[in-house]
Amino acid sequence: MSRDNVSLAVVRRLPRYYRHLHELLGEGVTRISSRLLADRLGLTASQIRQDLNCFGGFGQQGYGYNVEKLCREIGDILGLGAGLRAVIIGMGHIGHALCNNFDFLSAGVTLVGAFDVAEGVVGSSVGGLTVLHADELETFAAQTCPEIGILTLSRSDARAMCRRLSALPSVRGLWNFTSEDIRQERDGKPVEYVNYNDSLMTLCYRITNSRE
Amino acid sequence: MSRDNVSLAVVRRLPRYYRHLHELLGEGVTRISSRLLADRLGLTASQIRQDLNCFGGFGQQGYGYNVEKLCREIGDILGLGAGLRAVIIGMGHIGHALCNNFDFLSAGVTLVGAFDVAEGVVGSSVGGLTVLHADELETFAAQTCPEIGILTLSRSDARAMCRRLSALPSVRGLWNFTSEDIRQERDGKPVEYVNYNDSLMTLCYRITNSRE
Repeated sequence: MSRDNVSLAVVRRLPRYYRHLHELLGEGVTRISSRLLADRLGLTASQIRQDLNCFGGFGQQGYGYNVEKLCREIGDILGLGAGLRAVIIGMGHIGHALCNNFDFLSAGVTLVGAFDVAEGVVGSSVGGLTVLHADELETFAAQTCPEIGILTLSRSDARAMCRRLSALPSVRGLWNFTSEDIRQERDGKPVEYVNYNDSLMTLCYRITNSRE
Repeated sequence: MSRDNVSLAVVRRLPRYYRHLHELLGEGVTRISSRLLADRLGLTASQIRQDLNCFGGFGQQGYGYNVEKLCREIGDILGLGAGLRAVIIGMGHIGHALCNNFDFLSAGVTLVGAFDVAEGVVGSSVGGLTVLHADELETFAAQTCPEIGILTLSRSDARAMCRRLSALPSVRGLWNFTSEDIRQERDGKPVEYVNYNDSLMTLCYRITNSRE
């Protein structure tokens, strides 16, 4: 099935579908109508049907969706079963927050390495990993073959590290938390970014342009 | 000018326009063609013209855009001059990262209060603020009138705190960092969220569905 033409807007809704379906499973719900699923997600039933139709038919008229099956299908579409491994570069506040608090496994990803250059940080233990010196990245990657590089280092070092990560044969995508605007696909490798500044500015727009 | 029908997709591109234009100003660039701006942003020139046309005419045929004027106009559209004030609730890793490292002023926002409940944290100093006990939120807000509430506390406490923040008369929007899916506009108050899980799952999709 060709997924090349599924819009990124639809793709970005899939994780929420997955999370809510996973919670419904945990609540013991076995089937759900598109209307109830829509209520829960804050979407319309028609939007849900349209989205899911991009990936093939799910659900039955009058029956709704089988929660376990739909959850599993969306998980497959998202690549959660692919066993992707990630390394994280830059152990400041955000790096620590990710290593300690973020549930990588819920996204099917295993964090396998953490890197920094600061003296007190290299050698310390964070989230079950020992922080290695960034000089060891290439050697480590040759042995462990991570697919995802996570950039949580300072902006000034971001582009150089991005090039190093992209050059690693195993790396297939980057997760960028720095404020350096590394967005374009490099050599076809997708870059997802988390940019607080964009998000806050969007909130300011919505506040100052609301209908009150 | 009515902005009610400007799509959120366009709105979400505005902060990047602003950031790049602001940088261009800093580099001493006074005017730029839509083509060069497009290259810099990784968009097409036609997309840029379409986006900016939502907000009125900018730029001149053959001249391109005046950088300072366009930057200022987009800043106005984004509400960066509105002097919005924010309070942050929950001083864990993310809360600390925001207080210490995030440049709120670049988005025109001033952080005016930080709150937590933990004994060692209340009374400590973070990013120039003294952390207050969450019990003092209503009193503080009555005096300081913050417009933005930032949720960086644990998921289990998120909804209750969301209700308290929404109930404050001055609050006009929320910035949600918790994994609790608080997205719907409450009483018309917009909620922007930063959800790492959604972002990582989207990256996994793009990696496993790339054309390689």
